[in-house]
Amino acid sequence: HHVIVAGYGELTESILEELGDDHEFVVVVKEPTTASALRERGFNVLTEDPSDAASLDHAGIDRADAVVAATNDDGQDALAILTARQLQPDVRIVAAATERENEEKLRAAGADTVISPAVIGGRLLVQSALGDEHAEETAKQVTEGEEPGGSPETQSDEAADGN
Amino acid sequence: HHVIVAGYGELTESILEELGDDHEFVVVVKEPTTASALRERGFNVLTEDPSDAASLDHAGIDRADAVVAATNDDGQDALAILTARQLQPDVRIVAAATERENEEKLRAAGADTVISPAVIGGRLLVQSALGDEHAEETAKQVTEGEEPGGSPETQSDEAADGN
Ligand SMILES: [Ca+2]
Ligand SMILES: [Ca+2]
Repeated sequence: HHVIVAGYGELTESILEELGDDHEFVVVVKEPTTASALRERGFNVLTEDPSDAASLDHAGIDRADAVVAATNDDGQDALAILTARQLQPDVRIVAAATERENEEKLRAAGADTVISPAVIGGRLLVQSALGDEHAEETAKQVTEGEEPGGSPETQSDEAADGN
Repeated sequence: HHVIVAGYGELTESILEELGDDHEFVVVVKEPTTASALRERGFNVLTEDPSDAASLDHAGIDRADAVVAATNDDGQDALAILTARQLQPDVRIVAAATERENEEKLRAAGADTVISPAVIGGRLLVQSALGDEHAEETAKQVTEGEEPGGSPETQSDEAADGN
């Protein structure tokens, strides 16, 4: 798998963690400070605008299996999606709509899958508040990445380095 | 069901939509402009600080089935959770960790379920990018609130009032 992560936002750390060591990927970010911080952490980074055709070319879009467009700026995501789709009609493109009213627009721009974390979050919270055990399990599975009933000890203790 | 929505943030519109007309709920928000905007839309609102015991009393915590603490300020969520848990040891409390390193803290404060929309979003995006059809289905279910294969026409056309 070769995956292009187009831009950096709130979801990117989860994306990088989920990609882990098992997948080849490159992060394309315009901001030099974000780029060098990621590079120092050992990530494969291009300091370029992910909505430019040249950047996606440099990132290897011709051999990419997927492009992830999930910054906090849905307009930038739309531009990256449009560029990627134009360069590679068959590449898989997934995106996150920060504002839920942009879901359809990102789909129209060419994304195969568009999620809205706020919608998902609100939905799971309410279902869980109302005692829906299925929502509980879904939330647990997608949050902790484990089967329901699995051991919570498998979670890493990240609170230690946070603030 | 009586549900208390403690505070207003990015997830709140999805929460209100999911609660819909089927459940009795009250939104407790400190900011007068947010409160009156919600009130004008017909919601049951208290213009009070959701982390105060008196506010949660006014909101009917003694007969509440659940409290939802999901603002963008995890510290405020923690305070609301601590207050609610102190007032009602048995009430169901669900929360959203805006920063994923706060998940454990919100749980420690007394929340029964804590989700992190960024973690869920990142996870679903990557799984979907890598062609995991189960992730696709999960994303579709939790995003569109329908069974896989259901009709997308059931989604409301909210883009019209956005922006
Ligand atoms: Ca976005
Ligand atoms: Ca929060």
